[in-house]
Amino acid sequence: MRAAIFNGPRAIEVGERPDPVISAPTDAVVRVVLGCVCGSDLWYYRGDSPHELGPIGHEFIGVVEDLGSEVNGLARGDLVIAPFTFCDGTCPHCRAGVSSQCVAGGSFGNHGIDGGQGEAVRVPLAGSTLVKVPGSGHPDEMMRSLLALSDVMCTGHHAAASAGVSPGSVVAVVGDGAVGLCGIIAAQRLGANRIIALSRNPRRQEVARAFGATDILTERGEAAVDAVKEMTNGIGVDAALECVGTGESLRTAMDLARPGSVVGVVGAPHGVDFPVVDKVVFRNIGLRGGVAPARTYIPELLADVLDGRINPGRVFDFETSLDDIAGAYAAMDERRAIKSLVRVGSI
Amino acid sequence: MRAAIFNGPRAIEVGERPDPVISAPTDAVVRVVLGCVCGSDLWYYRGDSPHELGPIGHEFIGVVEDLGSEVNGLARGDLVIAPFTFCDGTCPHCRAGVSSQCVAGGSFGNHGIDGGQGEAVRVPLAGSTLVKVPGSGHPDEMMRSLLALSDVMCTGHHAAASAGVSPGSVVAVVGDGAVGLCGIIAAQRLGANRIIALSRNPRRQEVARAFGATDILTERGEAAVDAVKEMTNGIGVDAALECVGTGESLRTAMDLARPGSVVGVVGAPHGVDFPVVDKVVFRNIGLRGGVAPARTYIPELLADVLDGRINPGRVFDFETSLDDIAGAYAAMDERRAIKSLVRVGSI
Repeated sequence: MRAAIFNGPRAIEVGERPDPVISAPTDAVVRVVLGCVCGSDLWYYRGDSPHELGPIGHEFIGVVEDLGSEVNGLARGDLVIAPFTFCDGTCPHCRAGVSSQCVAGGSFGNHGIDGGQGEAVRVPLAGSTLVKVPGSGHPDEMMRSLLALSDVMCTGHHAAASAGVSPGSVVAVVGDGAVGLCGIIAAQRLGANRIIALSRNPRRQEVARAFGATDILTERGEAAVDAVKEMTNGIGVDAALECVGTGESLRTAMDLARPGSVVGVVGAPHGVDFPVVDKVVFRNIGLRGGVAPARTYIPELLADVLDGRINPGRVFDFETSLDDIAGAYAAMDERRAIKSLVRVGSI
Repeated sequence: MRAAIFNGPRAIEVGERPDPVISAPTDAVVRVVLGCVCGSDLWYYRGDSPHELGPIGHEFIGVVEDLGSEVNGLARGDLVIAPFTFCDGTCPHCRAGVSSQCVAGGSFGNHGIDGGQGEAVRVPLAGSTLVKVPGSGHPDEMMRSLLALSDVMCTGHHAAASAGVSPGSVVAVVGDGAVGLCGIIAAQRLGANRIIALSRNPRRQEVARAFGATDILTERGEAAVDAVKEMTNGIGVDAALECVGTGESLRTAMDLARPGSVVGVVGAPHGVDFPVVDKVVFRNIGLRGGVAPARTYIPELLADVLDGRINPGRVFDFETSLDDIAGAYAAMDERRAIKSLVRVGSI
């Protein structure tokens, strides 16, 4: 089969990989319909984080092509969402709702596991990992939103849920990437009363407003903190969502949060070089979040996607084919795209 | 009046200070009966943190001697507990339960505010700060526990509450100082099923067991993490309490916590030099805590002290007079004492 291959920073191309086959009775083989590029893919693309050479991509939806003998609840031909980490569903962490830390789990597109930016994927622990999408003939707009459930919408939800967003909350979202934008959807969905989005990019501002942002701030850093304090009578927000991962973005999120609140942290940390724990202790600002337990969240979010209540697929503002995977990365790297969708196969 | 004065690291002595008087209509003057030394006092005593020269000590109970015209709910002669930070009770942070971050607040024994290690204290915002103790003629054992509500018991409770200890929780407490020991009381009070205390000191182990620790571990660092993992089928604890403040203790607490859990952080951070946020994100370990909102917690904890359900005064295993304040510090500095009580006046 054909699949995107990481050959080193800025060297991503389509190459040949062995066709995936069932190698354990709990495996499935999924033929990929839609894949996409994650903001976290840019870290290794840019050489900022290490990544094994080989297959890449961890977000995809597709059709079940083959099933191991022990996979229950799925059939060939099912349309499925793959959460970006696979999991057994029975370990203590899965049972506690932290499926992203499954003791038997792992992620796609690394450590010898097929990536989602390819024609097909062997999915380990398929019965407890894949989520079947009911119905058929979903329009393209909905297919895009289903793809967003693979990671980005769940990650935005994790930020909001970890920060304790609840009815009436005043929320600030730091980061106008696809995760931050999905964090806005999640905050609105959890009942936030006011959602302040930090963004300087007119196209992202437009999506932010469509997703429920009530206020847009173009300031950054201390100026953003000052602006949020002014908007909240000097208090700070009830919940801040950190959706970038840099030291500056985390510092901003912690500084604009009110004492006693929790910053929902989902950005992969890079260059966090200030005394974080001093703010935890001396300002009473909590930190919670991490790698989103997508498998745990997909069912509730899927219901909202199918009902049309949320439309996270709007984060995909660039699309291309698998052949042009390099173009998909470049569009995000150059910030021409919020998030790149990759059309791989037909349903 | 006579009061402890900080003249620099390891230079603490009793000197003369002006008798406190009512200077604002919201003030009270409290004659100190019992004061004590906090683990955090050792940071400046040892020269590890800066501190203004002058009065010190932030934990005390005493008798109301004088009252400003706007202080409601208190009368001369009342026995009162002073939370270590004063607060107005009406600002957004106070109303949100984070009285330690009161916009009009401050702490005793710093920035020109009288310290609790002295004969009397001018208490700002007295009506919303001081908590009247009902009844009279309390025995000495209870007076010691009332003193513990000024800070250490509230701080231990803050660690446990911030970590989300709830009925059935398996809890680890890192730190066998007075705060950690009070964290054990708090964890048991909140319904923990198993409480693992890290301690190498036989006398502290004994107090830990008396307070509800079910298991004592003498290991530290990675060895402690391994031991806790073995005790919890490789999972980690549901809640970890960080009651020291060093990099090693925080790392240990984060490593022995299960993914998805929260470490209750109350130790003043010193030398935290590992990538904390990496653990927040890649292990899904939350951090929450900080300066305890003692005023918020005192009423519920006071009820338990008066009923004899908790006895945090047992952390005081050394006592002396105000004249010997230097001895009170030295006993804790040399780890001869868990916590030093200072007898200042009679009731």
